[in-house]
Amino acid sequence: MLEFSFSPFTLELKSVFRIARGERSSAPLVFTKISHEGVDGYGEASMPVLYGESHASAEAFLSKVDLSGFTDPFQTESILHYVDSIAPDNKAAKAAIDIALHDLIGKLAGKPVHTLFGLPYKEHHTSMTIGIDTPEKMAEKAISYNGFKYLKIKLGTDRDKEIIAAIRQVTDQPFFIDANQGWTDKHLALDQVQWLSEQNTIFIEQPMPRERKEDLQWLTSRSSIPIIGDEGVQRLDDLKEASGIYNGINIKLMKCTGIREGFKMAVAAKALGMRVMLGCMSETSCAISAASHLGALADWVDLDGNLDALNDPFRGHFVDGGRLVATGLPGIGLSKVDLKIFQEPASLR
Amino acid sequence: MLEFSFSPFTLELKSVFRIARGERSSAPLVFTKISHEGVDGYGEASMPVLYGESHASAEAFLSKVDLSGFTDPFQTESILHYVDSIAPDNKAAKAAIDIALHDLIGKLAGKPVHTLFGLPYKEHHTSMTIGIDTPEKMAEKAISYNGFKYLKIKLGTDRDKEIIAAIRQVTDQPFFIDANQGWTDKHLALDQVQWLSEQNTIFIEQPMPRERKEDLQWLTSRSSIPIIGDEGVQRLDDLKEASGIYNGINIKLMKCTGIREGFKMAVAAKALGMRVMLGCMSETSCAISAASHLGALADWVDLDGNLDALNDPFRGHFVDGGRLVATGLPGIGLSKVDLKIFQEPASLR
Repeated sequence: MLEFSFSPFTLELKSVFRIARGERSSAPLVFTKISHEGVDGYGEASMPVLYGESHASAEAFLSKVDLSGFTDPFQTESILHYVDSIAPDNKAAKAAIDIALHDLIGKLAGKPVHTLFGLPYKEHHTSMTIGIDTPEKMAEKAISYNGFKYLKIKLGTDRDKEIIAAIRQVTDQPFFIDANQGWTDKHLALDQVQWLSEQNTIFIEQPMPRERKEDLQWLTSRSSIPIIGDEGVQRLDDLKEASGIYNGINIKLMKCTGIREGFKMAVAAKALGMRVMLGCMSETSCAISAASHLGALADWVDLDGNLDALNDPFRGHFVDGGRLVATGLPGIGLSKVDLKIFQEPASLR
Repeated sequence: MLEFSFSPFTLELKSVFRIARGERSSAPLVFTKISHEGVDGYGEASMPVLYGESHASAEAFLSKVDLSGFTDPFQTESILHYVDSIAPDNKAAKAAIDIALHDLIGKLAGKPVHTLFGLPYKEHHTSMTIGIDTPEKMAEKAISYNGFKYLKIKLGTDRDKEIIAAIRQVTDQPFFIDANQGWTDKHLALDQVQWLSEQNTIFIEQPMPRERKEDLQWLTSRSSIPIIGDEGVQRLDDLKEASGIYNGINIKLMKCTGIREGFKMAVAAKALGMRVMLGCMSETSCAISAASHLGALADWVDLDGNLDALNDPFRGHFVDGGRLVATGLPGIGLSKVDLKIFQEPASLR
């Protein structure tokens, strides 16, 4: 018998975070708990407005989830197939269940989640993300992030070259560039890509709107550095088409419904000769720790969503010297859980 | 610390087995054993002559395998990556290690192998295979196999239509057809495919030589029933190209180096919209049981290789009413192991 509960939460960020298509100073989350034989597994959903989920949609979805019919939490495919079939979309809410389930079975088996998938733990250097701001402020951020090997720079503005020039004045750290669909002319996009490739840029994420598939294909075929699909590649079913458009994919648990589907996407992407990166939303150490277990299948990792949080109720895998280090604990590796998150007054739910 | 040993064996068959490109009355096998903390995992290699492996090649390869540097058998990716890197090819020998390793970790975790992969066990109807013979003798075999839902018919002769006509006189059981690369003219192949599709045929395996990629593509695009790649699709790296040639793939542990890579192939094939079948060589209940754990990812199962064996030293997953039934035991599910197989005099090795 599996017991399931959930609780909404608002993650407060240290500063306003801007990208080409929006900004936020907090993020709506829902925490989940799945219990079996006295052991608790924890999970998390983070719902960026742009992806269409919210506290209301996640709670409505999770209210429909009834795990009481399942007796064996190790039947992950069956359980997650049931969850996926309750309603379409709701990808972050589904991920919250996947994460809690894997935390639970890892704890029951006494193994970290990566071991459940047969994988070693790979201690990646995570990039640190700089949201859109004035070129001066972005350069200031870059200086403060000098302990990270890679900087992820949000672009897609009319001041992109100015921004890059300002940051390159203060650091030589390699860039991951994320335009968040911000470039709309393919020729200008190619100019940007070529210029950025001379600025020590490792790859470029989602340079153009995801629905502009032919333009993206055109751009990818001409780019000297990898073009990575993010908004344009959500779940496993998107991969076949994506392999003809992008050089690689950004796997985020909140887009792909969790660790298990993320694992499959990474396996299939590599079989197709695509590059794999792991990304995140504004998340706590719960979802960040969960994603990091797939590091052995990734070329690059951008798992910094918790580093900008003010009220993270979890402690788990952590950044040390710019590397994302595992606790080695069973499950997703949480070393601390503030249990108050499941004791909010009912009126808040 | 992992202890590893292996022992050669010759599997005797009840009758001579013929396909379009060869025949056999026995099969060279090697059994493997990996031990950790007093628990033994068993595996098996079966080396059909056509695939280039032999007792000599398998023993030479396995003699190079040193698992003493590994302390945790659950680090399957790391261990199997090491094994794969020792030498190219040797796919059956590599599978023998993969199978023993998964049997071991399943036993250590107290879980059947399918559960280690998060999968339920799917109780498929296995097909029963009829090798090439006179049409009359093949029809006699068909009668004796009336307990099976599907018959797998080996074709690729100059009497194919006669064979099918003779068998269709005695049974309506649906066919899996396997031409084993036996048809060499694409127009004649298409005629065969169209005629067979009217004879209650579910799919056709490897109708033409694997190197005739353009002809196979031409044939697949015109066939009303799925064309499945067997000889033409061995490992995960073959999948991308195969997705442009075939409608599906036949995953055999002895081709793909074992359960773990077979799992990945099935996941990736499904992501590409391809059909998946599980197949086998002449094998004992050890390798057959191992393969059956991937059944939940398969559309069709042809796991009958042990049913024609005279001296199977294992008992495991078994056929009951035409279905391949699991023992439910931990690991690959062996219920009996004749330990004499590891006690042969050294001269036999």
